Amino acid sequence: MSDQRVVRPTPISGFPEWTPQVRAVEQRWLDHIRAGFESFGFASVETPSVENLDVLMAKGETSQEVYTLHRLQADAKDDSDARLGLHFDLTVPFARYVAQHFNELTFPFKRYQMQRVWRGERPQEGRYREFTQCDIDVINVDSVPLHFDAELPRIVHRVLSGLDIPAWTLNVNNRKVLQGFYEGLGVKDPISVIRAVDKLHKIGDEGVREILVSEGLTTEQIDPCLALARIKGDGATVVTAVRELGVVSELLDEGLEELAFVMNDLADLPEGDVVADLSIARGLDYYTGTVYEASFDDDPEYGSICAGGRYENLAGQFIRRKLPGVGLSIGLTRIFAKLVAEGRIEGGRVCPTDVMVVVPNAERRTEALRTGELLRGRGFNTEVFHSIAKVGKQIQYASKKGIPFVWFPPFEEGGDHEVKDMERGEQATADPTDWDPKG
Amino acid sequence: MSDQRVVRPTPISGFPEWTPQVRAVEQRWLDHIRAGFESFGFASVETPSVENLDVLMAKGETSQEVYTLHRLQADAKDDSDARLGLHFDLTVPFARYVAQHFNELTFPFKRYQMQRVWRGERPQEGRYREFTQCDIDVINVDSVPLHFDAELPRIVHRVLSGLDIPAWTLNVNNRKVLQGFYEGLGVKDPISVIRAVDKLHKIGDEGVREILVSEGLTTEQIDPCLALARIKGDGATVVTAVRELGVVSELLDEGLEELAFVMNDLADLPEGDVVADLSIARGLDYYTGTVYEASFDDDPEYGSICAGGRYENLAGQFIRRKLPGVGLSIGLTRIFAKLVAEGRIEGGRVCPTDVMVVVPNAERRTEALRTGELLRGRGFNTEVFHSIAKVGKQIQYASKKGIPFVWFPPFEEGGDHEVKDMERGEQATADPTDWDPKG
Repeated sequence: MSDQRVVRPTPISGFPEWTPQVRAVEQRWLDHIRAGFESFGFASVETPSVENLDVLMAKGETSQEVYTLHRLQADAKDDSDARLGLHFDLTVPFARYVAQHFNELTFPFKRYQMQRVWRGERPQEGRYREFTQCDIDVINVDSVPLHFDAELPRIVHRVLSGLDIPAWTLNVNNRKVLQGFYEGLGVKDPISVIRAVDKLHKIGDEGVREILVSEGLTTEQIDPCLALARIKGDGATVVTAVRELGVVSELLDEGLEELAFVMNDLADLPEGDVVADLSIARGLDYYTGTVYEASFDDDPEYGSICAGGRYENLAGQFIRRKLPGVGLSIGLTRIFAKLVAEGRIEGGRVCPTDVMVVVPNAERRTEALRTGELLRGRGFNTEVFHSIAKVGKQIQYASKKGIPFVWFPPFEEGGDHEVKDMERGEQATADPTDWDPKG
Repeated sequence: MSDQRVVRPTPISGFPEWTPQVRAVEQRWLDHIRAGFESFGFASVETPSVENLDVLMAKGETSQEVYTLHRLQADAKDDSDARLGLHFDLTVPFARYVAQHFNELTFPFKRYQMQRVWRGERPQEGRYREFTQCDIDVINVDSVPLHFDAELPRIVHRVLSGLDIPAWTLNVNNRKVLQGFYEGLGVKDPISVIRAVDKLHKIGDEGVREILVSEGLTTEQIDPCLALARIKGDGATVVTAVRELGVVSELLDEGLEELAFVMNDLADLPEGDVVADLSIARGLDYYTGTVYEASFDDDPEYGSICAGGRYENLAGQFIRRKLPGVGLSIGLTRIFAKLVAEGRIEGGRVCPTDVMVVVPNAERRTEALRTGELLRGRGFNTEVFHSIAKVGKQIQYASKKGIPFVWFPPFEEGGDHEVKDMERGEQATADPTDWDPKG
């Protein structure tokens, strides 16, 4: 084998991969996010990585980025996977899942879903071709109580607060406020204004103004639109500031009431963590009420690290039931890969081992194995050294792998067990059946 | 939206998907397997779902089953993902990973990897197009101690014993025993005999005999080959039985010594769980020593649910270093999906909620939210009811979702909290800061 051609592998652009140390941190993050979701009673769902192209195309938005699957050697008799594509988000598969399993689900259905998704984008900073999203949604038949609009930011707050990441803000808005306000100003196509305002953070006031002028809006309409987008703060502050702009519309009233309810419900969270920000628009057409968007305070240009909102009808393409919902998606890879690239992820352990058991010699190996089983049974991740070697070499291995404790089973029948705390350098007798590393 | 065309989605053959209850069990299995792997100090690795086709084709064996990726709308300026395919196992990606990250890894490198893999096979019982494998391997530079050959069955034994699955047996053999034995019989191409014996469980003695006759073996050679394949038992039994066949070969001696060492090391496990079985051959060419294969006792026809072995050089195509290893792969989906299909998976909970907090009325909602946060902070998965509704309706919701405890915050300022055990029907006062559901 040694004389065959060697193709040294290289990373594939857009498909991140981590060393075991970094993977250990990612795994901790995933566990933490999952625990956060479950602590609010959300159930896990996973869907296949692929969907029928009909399903993926139902909305059409990201269709050009879809990866389709082809068998390397097509089977002429079986083209059953000829129309499959990898999912590009978790919302479309969730909509399909709810429609398909409608009769098996209990509503309101509270689910979380943490999976890889794929997009055939050109790789660039913050954009990956394969990445993990952590989605949480509530979906119900006919209507979804507003209480959930307030619960989701609370969940995300709990989750993000527990991750060691740079400061972030979760911004909340309500599409009814924007649409009602624009309607109150006499704008004919409020959605086009929403799309323009969505670009505000990228192109600035003047950029938005240019678009709105080209859309036929007057200065008397554009100025209040831009003034609205500058309003941010807690619920009461924002409501007062909007009222001061003097625009009147029923939809605006409804939106402000909803926004105030959500913000009021979250009043116990640390000030400034969740903020009502009327510049948040979210481009996607299907949002109809509350919208969310979080970004890093010191790098807003990086874009959203978490986003979502309320939609009136998630699965209308798949089932003749009205299924509104509200959801949030955390861009795990977007956050994690950025911090890895910036060297801000404190490397995790090389291995999950708590204790390495020394093998005194070939005759005492069974005793070492038994000790390993005892410690494992008590919940300690335990390696028994993997060969007969000098004790010094065994300790060196534990040290190289950062294993915190080295265990010495009795070197002679009837002798004592001892354990060495590698960090403190202390060694003491111990009993594998009741050893407590903290005691 | 309601008048648009509705495409009722259907399951995609070969891509399993579970209801939340079944998913809850799968999640528990995954947690258990991971904990088992980590309890022996193995580190988590994940690789991208795709590899370059060069990498996937390096061995060539399953190439016709590879799914290649294509963007729906190809970008003429960027064909950087034109040569990508989904991985069909976790061994090839692991070999590539070790070669690529060679200088970042600590050897012997003990890793586990639990991921989905894809194969464009025709769907049939026990075969999926997307399925999860749980792999565990040790890889080292130049040589791998035999102790690991014995450790891997111990790990798999721990893992499988903790899953509620039908009785299984993990069979162990050593390719050196087979090859040495055939060589000792004067067989010219021992590998062809290994391949024939590998089919024994499917085609029986007579089928194997036919193949071997066609390969030019004499009856004096074939009879001992079939006699060897009938030998099974503990280490000592097997060694004695092989010796009685009177074949002499150095390689055979070496293989028997290794097999006896592995079996002896596992002597503390319950009798019959891990068995030396000389009919186990494993078809793959790259195994060179120990081989493993587990199957269900009551359905051996279903094939292996776990398999692996020792290989001399895992990553020879990717790096000019000798990297031998030993590994085992648990076919999670193969096991799980069979039990689901047979109705043998006891449905998990609809949701992970431990406690549902009743909302007395709109005014007392903040108190309910605070109670929810308190209980969550103490580790209880807690839902606060999602709207203002009659208490009876709230309890009904908890009952429908199988939530074990319903919590009543004080309905008036200064009142007591109460909690209802839904299974026992008992209700009592409780303090959210020190409530213990077991007490």
